[in-house]
Amino acid sequence: MADNEFRTIQSLGRRELINELMEHNETQHKETIKGWGDDSAVLENSDHLKLLSSESFMEGVDFDLTYVPLHHLGYKVATAAVSDIYAMNGTPDAVLVNLSVPNKMSVDMLKQIYKGIGAAGKDYDFEIVGGDLSASHQLLGISISCYGNVDKELITYRSGARIGDAICVTGDVGGATAGLRILMREKKFWEEEKQQQSFQPNLDDYEYVVKRQLVPIARKSFIEILRDLDIIPTSMIDLTQGLVNDLQNLAEASGKGVYFYQATLPISLDTRNVADEMKEDVDKYALYGGEDYEMVFTLPEENVEKLSEEFSDFTVIGQVKNQEEGIRMQQAEGGVVSFNDSEG
Amino acid sequence: MADNEFRTIQSLGRRELINELMEHNETQHKETIKGWGDDSAVLENSDHLKLLSSESFMEGVDFDLTYVPLHHLGYKVATAAVSDIYAMNGTPDAVLVNLSVPNKMSVDMLKQIYKGIGAAGKDYDFEIVGGDLSASHQLLGISISCYGNVDKELITYRSGARIGDAICVTGDVGGATAGLRILMREKKFWEEEKQQQSFQPNLDDYEYVVKRQLVPIARKSFIEILRDLDIIPTSMIDLTQGLVNDLQNLAEASGKGVYFYQATLPISLDTRNVADEMKEDVDKYALYGGEDYEMVFTLPEENVEKLSEEFSDFTVIGQVKNQEEGIRMQQAEGGVVSFNDSEG
Repeated sequence: MADNEFRTIQSLGRRELINELMEHNETQHKETIKGWGDDSAVLENSDHLKLLSSESFMEGVDFDLTYVPLHHLGYKVATAAVSDIYAMNGTPDAVLVNLSVPNKMSVDMLKQIYKGIGAAGKDYDFEIVGGDLSASHQLLGISISCYGNVDKELITYRSGARIGDAICVTGDVGGATAGLRILMREKKFWEEEKQQQSFQPNLDDYEYVVKRQLVPIARKSFIEILRDLDIIPTSMIDLTQGLVNDLQNLAEASGKGVYFYQATLPISLDTRNVADEMKEDVDKYALYGGEDYEMVFTLPEENVEKLSEEFSDFTVIGQVKNQEEGIRMQQAEGGVVSFNDSEG
Repeated sequence: MADNEFRTIQSLGRRELINELMEHNETQHKETIKGWGDDSAVLENSDHLKLLSSESFMEGVDFDLTYVPLHHLGYKVATAAVSDIYAMNGTPDAVLVNLSVPNKMSVDMLKQIYKGIGAAGKDYDFEIVGGDLSASHQLLGISISCYGNVDKELITYRSGARIGDAICVTGDVGGATAGLRILMREKKFWEEEKQQQSFQPNLDDYEYVVKRQLVPIARKSFIEILRDLDIIPTSMIDLTQGLVNDLQNLAEASGKGVYFYQATLPISLDTRNVADEMKEDVDKYALYGGEDYEMVFTLPEENVEKLSEEFSDFTVIGQVKNQEEGIRMQQAEGGVVSFNDSEG
């Protein structure tokens, strides 16, 4: 590399970037079982493992206050942080909330954010135990760090997928992206019209997808079902960067390949309707849209049957293969698409 | 409160604000021993306690990239986060780093930040175990969450000060503020001159205070000395918001008052020289300047003697009193000043 060359962040994949950044992390603790590279960090503890995860959301990049109510924002960032704990098959205990607060925010606006985090705390059973408040120019920033735990026998890494395992996904995918498309369209419409004093779009027809975008739900209930049924996935990751990207992350961590079927992608009718209305390809929403906070996990066949007897809200979309086979999708029309690892 | 009234963040004290925000934190865990209100959160664990702390720094508010080298920035935010762990008499284990990164930052600039955090990891013996990278408009934001531990018998809260205890402070105070004044002056000078291509102030004469501002050191060594001498302070807080403010925080948590002596304030000659040059009152730096990351702690008299036999880098500045006496300072000239609780 030439000296003084300006390498943009975008020029590296996320993993490559993190590898470069971690060159300076020379201190290693014996109790750290897993640092970077999974949904949460994992620390050794007497009888169980401690989990740490962290999520940052910046105004103008991760959210737009024009259409995101503040309590939904609080709820969503908390969902993102606890989802990383669930993705290790663990349970959250406590969160730290860091806010960078611009002058345009009032006390009661901040309270709305905390109201949302508090509501998430009730749903996910975590406590807000601390954090930091600092000033910011113009834009609001939120980070939430989540602290959780998991029994040693239950922990589920991204790296455990075995050849032949079924690849499963909970719920449906692409909905959060559909919701974002609607919200952006309404914002544009409102900016062009400027007739109304306040932004009051009519979103009744889009309630499902808008909720998927604004108030996503982390998969606590699914983790509880796994526990009840005594099923431990061989690997698991939460869907935040989009299905293709997260399948790549899981496959890479496991040193495996993935073969999946376009026809099986679980897409809700509401999501399809939005894509039709936008004249867009709904499979793009499903394959590349992020923020669904569903779980992608792998199971041996016998456990798929066991799970499906008690739980119907998941879909088998493919199978774990040899690493050499890469990430491939059989299209509905019969062709096979290969996804290059965009991160490599 | 009238509906729709815009209450600015500044209109409330920090404590009052946190109390209002925590109204919605209805989920409480039995293992949470201490949430908000001390330097770190404290969680029950089998034989020892887990500590969690978190610090956020925003460009333009907490740091200015004109004169803050990126590796120093990484080191300083890490110092701030581990200092909160030391202030509980604990030791850090791991940190999570959240960065909000604007386009103006290159990969190698990010690496400088991580280099600083990694250097802090070596000094303070923590590992970087995870975090989040997100995009940001224009301004850089950093939050570091620190995870540590402390033996149950050693934990030191802000709340344990007893009437008659000596109030002590490590090192010297006001230096970080003096350094900031110098850096701001040099920046202004540079902006007015604009003759140079790059910013190269001559700071040799101000090395000590500039270091206090740019690369403050958390008091790991002091915590180790306490352990070696088998001394546990009755209360402790790290100096981040300024001496008066942090004394108020400690006194309030302990339900006590404080009487201290202006003449005893530990101020370095370098700090005094800067104040003279700026034609400012050096005691203002000492009383209200923050970010020194020294420890303020309380000890019974016998332990003051024991400590001073082995350790000289601390000063007794006053005594713990009844709560009714408030926070008072005896001036060098003999008068007594009362500080109103700016947070109440």
